Amino acid sequence: MFQLDLPKRTTKVRNEGITHVLDKGLGLNAVDDLISSAAQYIDILKLGWGTSYITQNLSEKIQRYRDADIDVCLGGTIFECAYVQNKVEDLKSWMKDLGLTFVEVSDGSVSIPMKEKLKYVELFAKDFKVLSEIGSKDAEVVVAPFKWVEEIKNTLKAGAYKIVTEGRESGTVGVFRNSGEIRKGLIEEILASTDISNIVFEAPQKAQQVWFIKEFGSNVNLGNIAYDEVISLETIRLGLRGDTVVDFVQKEK
Amino acid sequence: MFQLDLPKRTTKVRNEGITHVLDKGLGLNAVDDLISSAAQYIDILKLGWGTSYITQNLSEKIQRYRDADIDVCLGGTIFECAYVQNKVEDLKSWMKDLGLTFVEVSDGSVSIPMKEKLKYVELFAKDFKVLSEIGSKDAEVVVAPFKWVEEIKNTLKAGAYKIVTEGRESGTVGVFRNSGEIRKGLIEEILASTDISNIVFEAPQKAQQVWFIKEFGSNVNLGNIAYDEVISLETIRLGLRGDTVVDFVQKEK
Amino acid sequence: MFQLDLPKRTTKVRNEGITHVLDKGLGLNAVDDLISSAAQYIDILKLGWGTSYITQNLSEKIQRYRDADIDVCLGGTIFECAYVQNKVEDLKSWMKDLGLTFVEVSDGSVSIPMKEKLKYVELFAKDFKVLSEIGSKDAEVVVAPFKWVEEIKNTLKAGAYKIVTEGRESGTVGVFRNSGEIRKGLIEEILASTDISNIVFEAPQKAQQVWFIKEFGSNVNLGNIAYDEVISLETIRLGLRGDTVVDFVQKEK
Repeated sequence: MFQLDLPKRTTKVRNEGITHVLDKGLGLNAVDDLISSAAQYIDILKLGWGTSYITQNLSEKIQRYRDADIDVCLGGTIFECAYVQNKVEDLKSWMKDLGLTFVEVSDGSVSIPMKEKLKYVELFAKDFKVLSEIGSKDAEVVVAPFKWVEEIKNTLKAGAYKIVTEGRESGTVGVFRNSGEIRKGLIEEILASTDISNIVFEAPQKAQQVWFIKEFGSNVNLGNIAYDEVISLETIRLGLRGDTVVDFVQKEK
Repeated sequence: MFQLDLPKRTTKVRNEGITHVLDKGLGLNAVDDLISSAAQYIDILKLGWGTSYITQNLSEKIQRYRDADIDVCLGGTIFECAYVQNKVEDLKSWMKDLGLTFVEVSDGSVSIPMKEKLKYVELFAKDFKVLSEIGSKDAEVVVAPFKWVEEIKNTLKAGAYKIVTEGRESGTVGVFRNSGEIRKGLIEEILASTDISNIVFEAPQKAQQVWFIKEFGSNVNLGNIAYDEVISLETIRLGLRGDTVVDFVQKEK
Repeated sequence: MFQLDLPKRTTKVRNEGITHVLDKGLGLNAVDDLISSAAQYIDILKLGWGTSYITQNLSEKIQRYRDADIDVCLGGTIFECAYVQNKVEDLKSWMKDLGLTFVEVSDGSVSIPMKEKLKYVELFAKDFKVLSEIGSKDAEVVVAPFKWVEEIKNTLKAGAYKIVTEGRESGTVGVFRNSGEIRKGLIEEILASTDISNIVFEAPQKAQQVWFIKEFGSNVNLGNIAYDEVISLETIRLGLRGDTVVDFVQKEK
C-alpha cells in the first residue's frame, strides 16, 4: 500500500483550513465534475459577484452543491447592488428561498458608511453565517493597515463568521499590490490583533497560495480559488506539488 | 421578489448588443453546460480558426448550438487556408452541408488583395451572413486608421453583415496594442464614419470588455469572448460586476 | 469535398509527434469531452504532480483514458515524494495496481544524486516506459548545457523511453527563461548530441509551441499541454492556426 506521511489537514465541517471556491457561471456537468473529484476539499462555494442573478441553472446548481455538503453564498456585489437600490430585504428573502446558509457582505464597489455595513452584518447574522469582505476592488484605493484592523475587530463583534480579505478574481487588489505581490506588512498587522482562523484570504494566484501556505501552514483559510485549481491547491497544502514538497513531505524523511 | 433596476438589454435575434463567443474545441458536455446556463446571452459562436477541420464531434456540436438558436460560423483562418489553396468553393459547399448560416471572411494571416477579399464578401453574402474581419493577426502590422475606415466602408457596401475588428484570442493585436491597451484614436476614427451597430469588437480581455461597455453602453457588440466568460460579460453589461456597478446600478438609486 | 493539403502527421502509436497532456484534476465529464473531441491527438496523459494521490475519481479516470488508447502516467513529483520517504517500491506497486504503463522519474523539486536517479530509471524500465524529466522546477536554478547533455545521454543509456525537458505548468523554468522566452542555445546543444525524437519538450505556452513547431516541424514531441489546448496545438502543427498558416498551408499553393 502506498501511503505518504503528509501534514494533517482539517476535515469538514472545517473552521480552519477552509477552501472557498469561485463559481462564475459553471454548468451542471462541470459542477458534477467538481463535486465528484473534489467535494471534500471545498467548504464554501461563491457564485461570484452578480452571476447568480442571471445564470439559468441556479436552483439546481445550488441544490447539487448542498447535497455534496458544500455551503453556497452569493458574491458580495449582489448585496452592494441591492444596497444602492434599497432592496436588501428582498435580497434576503430571495437568499432564504434559495436555501442559502451563507451571505457575503462587502463594500468593494460602492461606498457604504462603516456603521451601516456593520448594521447589515448584524442583521444577516441572525439568519446566515456572514462572510464580511474587507478591502476595495479598486486598485487605486489602498487602505491603511490600522483601518483594516479596526474594521476587522468591529465586524467580528457585529457577528461575522469570517472576514474575507478582498483579492478579486485576479489577485491584484486588497492585500495584494497591482502586480499580485503580497502586502506582507499589512497581513502582519492584521494578524497581530486577530486570530488567523477568523480570516479567509482571497488568493487566486498560485504564487499567492504558496506564500500563505508556506507562511501559515496547510490549514490557512484561502478564498476565490478557481474551480479548476481546487485539487492543485489541496496538493500545495499537502506538499504534493513542487512548491511545497520540501516544506511538508521531505522534512518527514 | 428580488428585482433590480438594470440597463435594458436587447434580446435575440439581436442586431446590437451581440456577444460573439470563441469555441476552440469544446466537447459536448461543455457545450451542453454553456447552452443550459447561458444560451440567451450568446448570439454567434465561432469555431476558432481551423479547429472545425479536426474536431471529432463537429456535426453534433453544430446541431446543439443551432437547436439553442445560436448561430455558428467557422473561424476566418479556415477561409484563408482555402483561399491560398484555391479551394474556396469546396469550403463553401462544406459550410452549406454543415448547415451554417454565417461565414467569416478575413485576411489576418495571409495577404489577399482588397478587391479579391471584397469579391469573396459579395460571393458569400448570397448564401450567408458575412462577418468580415479587419486587421492583422501580426502584432508587427499596424494599419493606419484611414485604411481601416476605407476598408470598412467598402466591405459593408459589398454586403457584409458586420465588421469584426481583429483582436485574436489574446487581445493584443488589431485595435489593441501589444500590451492589450486599446487604440482609442483608431476606434474614434472608425466610429466617426460608421454606425457602431455595424462593428463587432473582438475584446477577449476583461479590461477591454469593461472599457467598451463603459464607453459605448451595455449593448455594444463584443467578440472572441471565452466560453467561460460569457456570464461574466453579461454581468458587466448589466452592472452586476464590480467594474460597472457604479455606472449602471447605482445611478438608478 | 473540402480537403486541404496539410503537413503529414504521424499517427498512433507515435514515436514522434507526441502530444503529452496535463490533467490536474479533471472530472469525468471533462475527460469524456477530451476523449470524444481529441483522443487521436493525445499520446500521453499526465496526472500532474501529486494530484493522483487525492483525486476522488482516479481509477475510473485512468480506465477511460486507457479505453481511448491514451497512455497515462503520474507526475514526477509523486515519485519524488516517494523517494524522500523511502517508499518507491510502494509507489511502484500502486502504479501497477492502477494499470499504468508509463512512469515519470524526475528530480525537479528534491535533490537526487545522479547515480540514484539513473538507478530508478533502470529499475522502472523493467516494468514501465520511463519518461525521465530533466531540469529544475526552481527558476533560480539554471543548469549548464553540458550537464543537460551528459544527463540526457546517461538517462537514455539507463533505459528511458523519452527525456522530458522541464517547463512546469507555467513554461517559465528549465529550457525557458523566467519570462517564458526559449533558451535556444541550450536546445541547440541538446540536439547536437541527441536525436530530437528522444525528447519531449514541455511547452505549455502557445508562443513556445509555435516556436518549436516552426523550428522542428509538425512532428516535434511537445508536453505539458493544457487539456483545453490540445486541439489548438494540433491546428498549429497542421498550419490551421494563424501562427503557422504561412509555413504549412500557403507554401503548398
